[in-house]
Amino acid sequence: MPTAILLIHCPDQPGLVRAVASFIAENGGNIVHFDQHVDSQEGIFFMRAEWDLANFVISREDLPVFIRALAEPRRMTWSLHFSDERHRLALFVSKDAHCLYDLLSRHEAGELDADIPLIIANHDALRPAAERFNIPFHLIPVTPENKPQAEAQQLALLEEHKVETVVLARYMQILSNDICAAWPNRVINIHHSFLPAFPGAKPYHSAHRRGVKIIGATSHYVTAELDEGPIIEQDVIRVTHKQTVQDLVRQGRDLEKVVLSRAVRWHVQRKVLAYNNKTVVFA
Amino acid sequence: MPTAILLIHCPDQPGLVRAVASFIAENGGNIVHFDQHVDSQEGIFFMRAEWDLANFVISREDLPVFIRALAEPRRMTWSLHFSDERHRLALFVSKDAHCLYDLLSRHEAGELDADIPLIIANHDALRPAAERFNIPFHLIPVTPENKPQAEAQQLALLEEHKVETVVLARYMQILSNDICAAWPNRVINIHHSFLPAFPGAKPYHSAHRRGVKIIGATSHYVTAELDEGPIIEQDVIRVTHKQTVQDLVRQGRDLEKVVLSRAVRWHVQRKVLAYNNKTVVFA
Amino acid sequence: MPTAILLIHCPDQPGLVRAVASFIAENGGNIVHFDQHVDSQEGIFFMRAEWDLANFVISREDLPVFIRALAEPRRMTWSLHFSDERHRLALFVSKDAHCLYDLLSRHEAGELDADIPLIIANHDALRPAAERFNIPFHLIPVTPENKPQAEAQQLALLEEHKVETVVLARYMQILSNDICAAWPNRVINIHHSFLPAFPGAKPYHSAHRRGVKIIGATSHYVTAELDEGPIIEQDVIRVTHKQTVQDLVRQGRDLEKVVLSRAVRWHVQRKVLAYNNKTVVFA
Amino acid sequence: MPTAILLIHCPDQPGLVRAVASFIAENGGNIVHFDQHVDSQEGIFFMRAEWDLANFVISREDLPVFIRALAEPRRMTWSLHFSDERHRLALFVSKDAHCLYDLLSRHEAGELDADIPLIIANHDALRPAAERFNIPFHLIPVTPENKPQAEAQQLALLEEHKVETVVLARYMQILSNDICAAWPNRVINIHHSFLPAFPGAKPYHSAHRRGVKIIGATSHYVTAELDEGPIIEQDVIRVTHKQTVQDLVRQGRDLEKVVLSRAVRWHVQRKVLAYNNKTVVFA
Repeated sequence: MPTAILLIHCPDQPGLVRAVASFIAENGGNIVHFDQHVDSQEGIFFMRAEWDLANFVISREDLPVFIRALAEPRRMTWSLHFSDERHRLALFVSKDAHCLYDLLSRHEAGELDADIPLIIANHDALRPAAERFNIPFHLIPVTPENKPQAEAQQLALLEEHKVETVVLARYMQILSNDICAAWPNRVINIHHSFLPAFPGAKPYHSAHRRGVKIIGATSHYVTAELDEGPIIEQDVIRVTHKQTVQDLVRQGRDLEKVVLSRAVRWHVQRKVLAYNNKTVVFA
Repeated sequence: MPTAILLIHCPDQPGLVRAVASFIAENGGNIVHFDQHVDSQEGIFFMRAEWDLANFVISREDLPVFIRALAEPRRMTWSLHFSDERHRLALFVSKDAHCLYDLLSRHEAGELDADIPLIIANHDALRPAAERFNIPFHLIPVTPENKPQAEAQQLALLEEHKVETVVLARYMQILSNDICAAWPNRVINIHHSFLPAFPGAKPYHSAHRRGVKIIGATSHYVTAELDEGPIIEQDVIRVTHKQTVQDLVRQGRDLEKVVLSRAVRWHVQRKVLAYNNKTVVFA
Repeated sequence: MPTAILLIHCPDQPGLVRAVASFIAENGGNIVHFDQHVDSQEGIFFMRAEWDLANFVISREDLPVFIRALAEPRRMTWSLHFSDERHRLALFVSKDAHCLYDLLSRHEAGELDADIPLIIANHDALRPAAERFNIPFHLIPVTPENKPQAEAQQLALLEEHKVETVVLARYMQILSNDICAAWPNRVINIHHSFLPAFPGAKPYHSAHRRGVKIIGATSHYVTAELDEGPIIEQDVIRVTHKQTVQDLVRQGRDLEKVVLSRAVRWHVQRKVLAYNNKTVVFA
Repeated sequence: MPTAILLIHCPDQPGLVRAVASFIAENGGNIVHFDQHVDSQEGIFFMRAEWDLANFVISREDLPVFIRALAEPRRMTWSLHFSDERHRLALFVSKDAHCLYDLLSRHEAGELDADIPLIIANHDALRPAAERFNIPFHLIPVTPENKPQAEAQQLALLEEHKVETVVLARYMQILSNDICAAWPNRVINIHHSFLPAFPGAKPYHSAHRRGVKIIGATSHYVTAELDEGPIIEQDVIRVTHKQTVQDLVRQGRDLEKVVLSRAVRWHVQRKVLAYNNKTVVFA
């Protein structure tokens, strides 16, 4: 049974819950999930409402007009989604297979609620993995010299395949500011440290050198500032003096997989609202 | 600024969020927190709404009448609370000091949002601890012979001090079924295992014998079935073959303290709804 | 550079560390890892010594004779292994793909330090997964009627492929007591609960019904008593009232994968010693 | 039954385990704990040996001479301790009570294996807490102007009370480089973040601003570089967008208490070896 999902954030003010709940109820919608949060320090209201469309009297086509009428006087920023319109993801990969295999096997198991029309890679190493799961694999090598052309190729493919969100599944290239600006909160990265500790390259080496007792992984939206975007999810694991850098790399892979897949899943389910370089996650 | 807190559970039906939100908004209340949950398997709706009373036009005295009008046609089970009416807790203790010290130092630090008018003990061991924090200490030894009289004494003290909730802070006695029945969801226990593993006595010994790699603690409402009541909170810690039973006991104390205090805090903040021997915790 | 690994357990007595360390040093071995543990309650000594064979003067063939001379007067139970003799694993599967994919992708990434000469299944569902990773797949359907013959077939295959350890990667059949007895501490299972809570079938349903706030997974050696064998590894994840049974199943898969793979890895590295239905894990 | 504890680190070389184990065994010592670690990247060997003195034939007075003979040819850095010589701790506090109460109640429960002859404070706020537990309380206000004299007073008290280790239990002052240099690996701090994330002041504010999904606490030895010393222990807890800064502060207190107490306990038990700005913890 399809549902509509409405995401809102706006200045906090009286009557917001009533306004949305009344709109849904008066038009025959039955609320399935209703989450709200007020950042009282910043005075911002966040909401995610999901309702059953079975007896809802407004058509999908007309719904935006009605929501606009609700939103404008309250200065709401909003987006509307339908549970049966599947998200389309592009996976960007490099040489590391673990996140790719993880996402593809979840996709195959029906865990992900999304389509994966293509994989884009800057190395050929993971072509066999893509082929095993029958996902088209596009090799676009990126060098300092060809970066603008390579990104143009990537963008053309994303457009052609109607991709909504890009998942950097251990794609070791830094995206240009143009892409970051054009795809706000639509590019999800996995960084192999507990940010803001150890940004940049070789975080497990840095963690080993610093002698931390816990390592982590962080999934975040990509912004123009490297490893500084809104954090969606993090997780950690204990380590001891016994672990070598190679052990950290190996153990970290398990973190990276699960943290990235949680972030992608919540994003796909429209449970993540980003604002002020942070996220509200109605998980 | 005081708030009103309304807890509801009822059969799921369309329009519940609207009904409550409209009631609050139309009478000048500004919603501060609004949490809802639908157990779709059981068809039960749960809600916790908290609103600012500053401009609310209905007096505290009249409010129950209005809520009854809202609740009855929808078969709502409800309770109403005010943030400035401080919860009154009685702590029941035996010989172990750690949970008692933990609760008293949190209370002193203002973390607990509750008053502690008295401590009831079946041993004298913790009297000095109580005295350090200036909480009246009542010694009521319990033996198989005097149990009914002892419980009558306890109940008289609870009534005299207008106690709302009893916290069994490692009180090693089993309450009689009469008390359990008379105080439903108002007696909070801490059990020193990850229930339902290792109910009953000496759980750390059992955990050691079984060779588990993780131990836990569980805070739950007390019911007539020993260690079977609705679970409010649990937490765990990793252990290895190196730990002796004594080590588990020591490490477990840290779990017990934090799990119990979280459960008490959520309970005091009216964030816990119990039903069907489970809890919804709007933490 | 190959190493020798010696595992010992015996009654605790003075001079054990010296005896082993001296034997290794006097014959030119350089200790790489040396772990010992004394269960002082039971009076049992456990040891894992790993030494570099580069300048070791005793040949692999003669080594057992020397170790026997060391072990017999001290009543040591021991086993000897070489790091370059790769462990041979058979994976038993049913219909659930997640543990199989996880083990195969780790194997492909070189994480597992073992060979996987075959997969044995009682359903055909995972044949494509096996084929993707080029591992021979043997379908042996098991019914109440054919169980003895099916197990005979399984055992013949294990012998033919010189399998040392069987991994039950969500194989939903219960092995007969004969196999359990014949393969002590050589069959590793993953159970989808935090044992001893929720043994047997449908543990996520039981966990949901009981309203636990944390779910877990347990990897253990298989014994004749169902879900009662020595625990190798466990891990857990927090859940809330929001999760349905299906959510628990999905989240639990991530636990099962990582717990099973850790157990298999430690077993393969000869880091697990089982005794008294418990394990010492020198991880 | 008293034990001797020998801590060693030295360049890795063949025969180290044998040398120590033989020395102990030949003189009648029975090893109770024996832990070793090789940092193979740096080529450093670490060892902690603990043995029963019941039948040990060398007196405590003579033992250092013998160990020196063992250590010098192998370039060992070593220290020798006896389990019945209780560690003497000074607690430095400011205004926050939680770590102080935690340490004092553990001390009272016999968990800490150490004496606490005095508390030194730069504010008078925690005098009542100290008095409740009958620990002498010394107020030494520290201002930019009087810092050298204040530190001289502190050092005089530490010497007078034969203090071995200083615990900064949320002492908000920065020690001078002189003290840091004079007390290497003998001053333990608790920092209220997951270092190296959020060093310096107000880490919970920084964590909230950055929108992390996990917060932490770190206990480390104090060095001249602020928050840069060898990490002994860390732990973390999940947070969500719901938590305000005040919530983080409150939840963080539970982390700080347990992380600091673990670090102090391991230190007191001589289980921590510091080198290269990292620690080996034989926990």
